[in-house]
Amino acid sequence: MNTTLNKRIKALGLILPPAPKPLGVYRPLLVEGNFVYVSGQGPVLDEKSLIMGKVGGDLDKDQGKNAARQVGLTMLSTLVTHLNPELRIKRVIKVLGMVNATPEFEEHPYVINGFSELMVEVFGENYGIGARSAVGMSLPQNIAVEIEAQFLLDQ
Amino acid sequence: MNTTLNKRIKALGLILPPAPKPLGVYRPLLVEGNFVYVSGQGPVLDEKSLIMGKVGGDLDKDQGKNAARQVGLTMLSTLVTHLNPELRIKRVIKVLGMVNATPEFEEHPYVINGFSELMVEVFGENYGIGARSAVGMSLPQNIAVEIEAQFLLDQ
Amino acid sequence: MNTTLNKRIKALGLILPPAPKPLGVYRPLLVEGNFVYVSGQGPVLDEKSLIMGKVGGDLDKDQGKNAARQVGLTMLSTLVTHLNPELRIKRVIKVLGMVNATPEFEEHPYVINGFSELMVEVFGENYGIGARSAVGMSLPQNIAVEIEAQFLLDQ
Repeated sequence: MNTTLNKRIKALGLILPPAPKPLGVYRPLLVEGNFVYVSGQGPVLDEKSLIMGKVGGDLDKDQGKNAARQVGLTMLSTLVTHLNPELRIKRVIKVLGMVNATPEFEEHPYVINGFSELMVEVFGENYGIGARSAVGMSLPQNIAVEIEAQFLLDQ
Repeated sequence: MNTTLNKRIKALGLILPPAPKPLGVYRPLLVEGNFVYVSGQGPVLDEKSLIMGKVGGDLDKDQGKNAARQVGLTMLSTLVTHLNPELRIKRVIKVLGMVNATPEFEEHPYVINGFSELMVEVFGENYGIGARSAVGMSLPQNIAVEIEAQFLLDQ
Repeated sequence: MNTTLNKRIKALGLILPPAPKPLGVYRPLLVEGNFVYVSGQGPVLDEKSLIMGKVGGDLDKDQGKNAARQVGLTMLSTLVTHLNPELRIKRVIKVLGMVNATPEFEEHPYVINGFSELMVEVFGENYGIGARSAVGMSLPQNIAVEIEAQFLLDQ
């Protein structure tokens, strides 16, 4: 378990869902050089449930934003579970925020802020904010939000 | 302001829109090592307007291509405004071109060429062309095109 | 032609389609440092045909998975054709699997496994599996699947 990150998560009182098992032929994350590439994560609630539904239809923008925060908690769980405990994350480099939105939905950035605000809580204003796109598409299992991210290691 | 890039833009007679302020919790661009990661940019016309509409519906493929060129001008504005003036861009590495297309639209590459042809004008045939995907999804504020890109610095 | 990769492909009895010519202003792949960035590839069958159709509508999930495998064969063809023959690929770093799915389709990871399982055959269990997202959007020419990937060179 990644100690520094885990301490920060505990200090903030964040409750992490279980790290999801891959649904296909991929790794939860891959470290190459200074970079950590994290596979697309969904909004895991517990072993058996995810936040599902189309944002702009089944879910409103605030429910979508909450789902994006849950994706952030899921990604933190993946990091503390699967990252080599000797490695420390320095910062967020790049985020691709994918919203399961209706074709008319227009507030993808508002939704993905749920993830990005959590990254600021955990990594701080300077290191928690990276480059980002926030867009709409259809997603596996009809999950509300999926996010992939690239982090930088502290070396 | 980035001098070399700015001179090239002036020499070509390009008129840049204002660099957009982030609509959410992200940076316009992030430099890490030799890489510049630019957040998803839209087709900004001026402080208050963007090119909006679904390509294949509200807009035809040539209007879409023009919107992609405007995204390129917007990205250049972001680069001259936010990139450390001591850094010089060498080349385009990778482009993700996202078209706000109707489900039946099939000419995403034609549309995104509006962006890529501008990059060739500015950076040349060799350095202006990188790897690329051009695909369709729903976009924030119903903008017609959004593009994120990764550049290499000259070091 | 990339010898090591080509030998492995031959040993497996894989039949590669012709490497596709870019449909727009982009390179089939770009090498920068240790990284190979491959542009979005479609499921090429021969010079004139691609696997087309919406997965979840025109095509079922197994036909979609087969299309994703064909994208993998197309990407291998692109690699053996365009990668400098002195360079050797070590591993898959990151895959973005894009399915031309109906809005209700939910099994994007199952589909993209058609690509990822091929990468395991060619590069092995350890090096063939990287980070991944598998999501749904509209695609050029109504192709069933498009995939972009980042590989690491052996240096």
